Amino acid sequence: MKASSAPMSGMRDLLPNEVSLRQTIIEKIIKVYKSYGFSEIETPVIERRELLTAGEGGDNEKLIYEILKRGLKTEDLKGADSKQKLTDSGLRYDLTVPLARYYANNHAKLPFPFKSLQIGNVFRAERPQKGRFRQFTQCDIDIIGDESILAEQELLLATTEALSEIGFKDFTVSINDRRILKGILEFCGYKENEFDTVLITVDKLDKISIEEIEEELTSKIKNTDATSKLIDFLYIVKNSNENNVDLFNNLPDNVDVFAIDELKQIISVIETQSNVGCAIVFDPTLVRGMDYYTGPIFEIKDEKFPASIAGGGRYDKMIGKYSNNEVPACGFSIGFERVMSMLEELDLDSTEQKQKAAVIYDPDKVSNSFALYIANNARAVNDVVSTQKRRKNMTQQLTNLAENGYTKYCLLNTEGIESEFKPISK
Amino acid sequence: MKASSAPMSGMRDLLPNEVSLRQTIIEKIIKVYKSYGFSEIETPVIERRELLTAGEGGDNEKLIYEILKRGLKTEDLKGADSKQKLTDSGLRYDLTVPLARYYANNHAKLPFPFKSLQIGNVFRAERPQKGRFRQFTQCDIDIIGDESILAEQELLLATTEALSEIGFKDFTVSINDRRILKGILEFCGYKENEFDTVLITVDKLDKISIEEIEEELTSKIKNTDATSKLIDFLYIVKNSNENNVDLFNNLPDNVDVFAIDELKQIISVIETQSNVGCAIVFDPTLVRGMDYYTGPIFEIKDEKFPASIAGGGRYDKMIGKYSNNEVPACGFSIGFERVMSMLEELDLDSTEQKQKAAVIYDPDKVSNSFALYIANNARAVNDVVSTQKRRKNMTQQLTNLAENGYTKYCLLNTEGIESEFKPISK
Repeated sequence: MKASSAPMSGMRDLLPNEVSLRQTIIEKIIKVYKSYGFSEIETPVIERRELLTAGEGGDNEKLIYEILKRGLKTEDLKGADSKQKLTDSGLRYDLTVPLARYYANNHAKLPFPFKSLQIGNVFRAERPQKGRFRQFTQCDIDIIGDESILAEQELLLATTEALSEIGFKDFTVSINDRRILKGILEFCGYKENEFDTVLITVDKLDKISIEEIEEELTSKIKNTDATSKLIDFLYIVKNSNENNVDLFNNLPDNVDVFAIDELKQIISVIETQSNVGCAIVFDPTLVRGMDYYTGPIFEIKDEKFPASIAGGGRYDKMIGKYSNNEVPACGFSIGFERVMSMLEELDLDSTEQKQKAAVIYDPDKVSNSFALYIANNARAVNDVVSTQKRRKNMTQQLTNLAENGYTKYCLLNTEGIESEFKPISK
Repeated sequence: MKASSAPMSGMRDLLPNEVSLRQTIIEKIIKVYKSYGFSEIETPVIERRELLTAGEGGDNEKLIYEILKRGLKTEDLKGADSKQKLTDSGLRYDLTVPLARYYANNHAKLPFPFKSLQIGNVFRAERPQKGRFRQFTQCDIDIIGDESILAEQELLLATTEALSEIGFKDFTVSINDRRILKGILEFCGYKENEFDTVLITVDKLDKISIEEIEEELTSKIKNTDATSKLIDFLYIVKNSNENNVDLFNNLPDNVDVFAIDELKQIISVIETQSNVGCAIVFDPTLVRGMDYYTGPIFEIKDEKFPASIAGGGRYDKMIGKYSNNEVPACGFSIGFERVMSMLEELDLDSTEQKQKAAVIYDPDKVSNSFALYIANNARAVNDVVSTQKRRKNMTQQLTNLAENGYTKYCLLNTEGIESEFKPISK
């Protein structure tokens, strides 16, 4: 019996044209980010169990691929009644937690402030479903050490430019601030220990109606006065038609004025300076999942797709957990896998346009050596030149070449005599 | 207490300049390989336990990072008396075994013959030692489906060109054939079941003397007549001064003539066609570790370093274990991590030369908005422009910028008034 050749459940093999498209997109993104002064770093795929389970990963911590300790003997296995005794490490589920560790470990050797770029694989043992994989690529930029909104502004300018560069045209930035959200919940009259529950429900606003939000909140929280105030506010937001001025005017008076002013400044810079002329909308109901956000939060959507393309925010309390000082930080992550499937749907022609030629020779009449010599010369004027023996079914051979992007070929029949390159018809 | 910020034992964080150098080298290698018609593919980092432990990995199979099954309950843990009950997958230890699976799984969608390029991380839980890491990058090319020496010739031409492109100048290709090795051992009078033991010892010839080889063989194998013949042969090889003609003439008569002829043709093509004029030497004592090689084997060394830069060979029996037919295959792997440390020692200037400029502004006198506007304009004529607030100690700030490759800066003191870019002195 043959061994199974399929990849593990939730894993995938990438074909040459898929890898090629991914590389082209990654190169374009890197080029823009580097032009803004971001430097690429790399952290290991394997991290300590303690780091991965320290509580910063939210639900992702339930999805960790855990690695068996080295050198376990049969008696160790028999005596183990918990995973802690069997595993000391796992695969990273995101790039933010490793970045916090990395910065603490290496800050003395890094520029200050540090503008980090990371593109790498992360792993989550999710229930397999169509189009979702357990190994996938994330693409993050972070600015560490800048407490001012210059960080948010640079993250937004760079990311909108990168998205435009890879082909997105009609996208909108939504922006909010965790401090504003907090002010709204306080205004409604929720208690601090109810905030998380309320926000988890409000976060569903792009999937369910305000009526359904109200139902869910009423069933979860007894504080109906607060919920009724919040629902009124959600309708005001809904009826504002994304008019930023109206939205700011309708905020309750108790909301942090400093946070509002910062948000207005961020919006103003994106409106006036973005090279790609994208819209930016204040959305006081934007939540973003992760607990660790402390200030401005933002996400980007393309009007043609329901899901967001990119998201991020400020997380000023996280790096301090690994270093001796609190260090302000702000990050933005492009949903790389989602972007790849959107680009496929938009059918943008992002593939490299390469001149590809094949040198085909009849091995009974011509030496490898001569064929390789012709190929080598042809490489001076073509990007790609591949040498092949003539196959019996040459029509099939040419079809196979055409399918793989080859546009011309020459057929060598006589030793020492060159022959012209001809087009391969599709 | 703060959490530990160091990476796991055997893992490492890569700093921006390290990532940048690695990327530059990888881009150059990819460019050459693609020009020969190799297509990049990607396989998952996680593979099935059965695939990784099927016997193709030699000693590497003892070094697998094993991943805990998902959904194990406490009673599953208590009842487990073997790793098989706890793990179903692991991290790949090389790129060849996954390639064999990949080809079997995807061959219908791939060009034929298929010229594969893979650059990716592999994982081996080796005993930690200086300069060796448990996660490291491999860079492999393979030609699948070509039984002829055209494959060996293209692998060698492409790899020597790639090595030259990244800065190696004085390197030598050593080449041998497993069939020739077999012929020599038969001529000496070894029995087939002794071959592996003999080869493991002969493989040490670049580390220990012929006298030591003789000692080791005598202690391991009773067949002293054979060993004495083999030692005579090793002295002949040693005294040939790497003269290919002499070496071929001194081969025993029973050695496969077809294999000798193929080797001569491969050597002739590299001698006459290599764009980089490297030496190629027939070394009838070259073994190369892996069991799966069936024909020509080769490796490349730079005269300045004892270890090899690249190695490979033909393995015609491996792919067939996963597909329904035997498929010929031949591969070449650049020792990427070794290459990186050699390049550092050679101190080649392979880093990107970029124009990097900083826009520094006094936040008490100038708005972010104006600073970002100036930075955006400067990005039109510089590769990298980073915006920073003026720090109290501006001398330190400029030193930090210089250390990170910035060569010029402008200081903005007055809203709306541009200022000239000045050089940053180191």
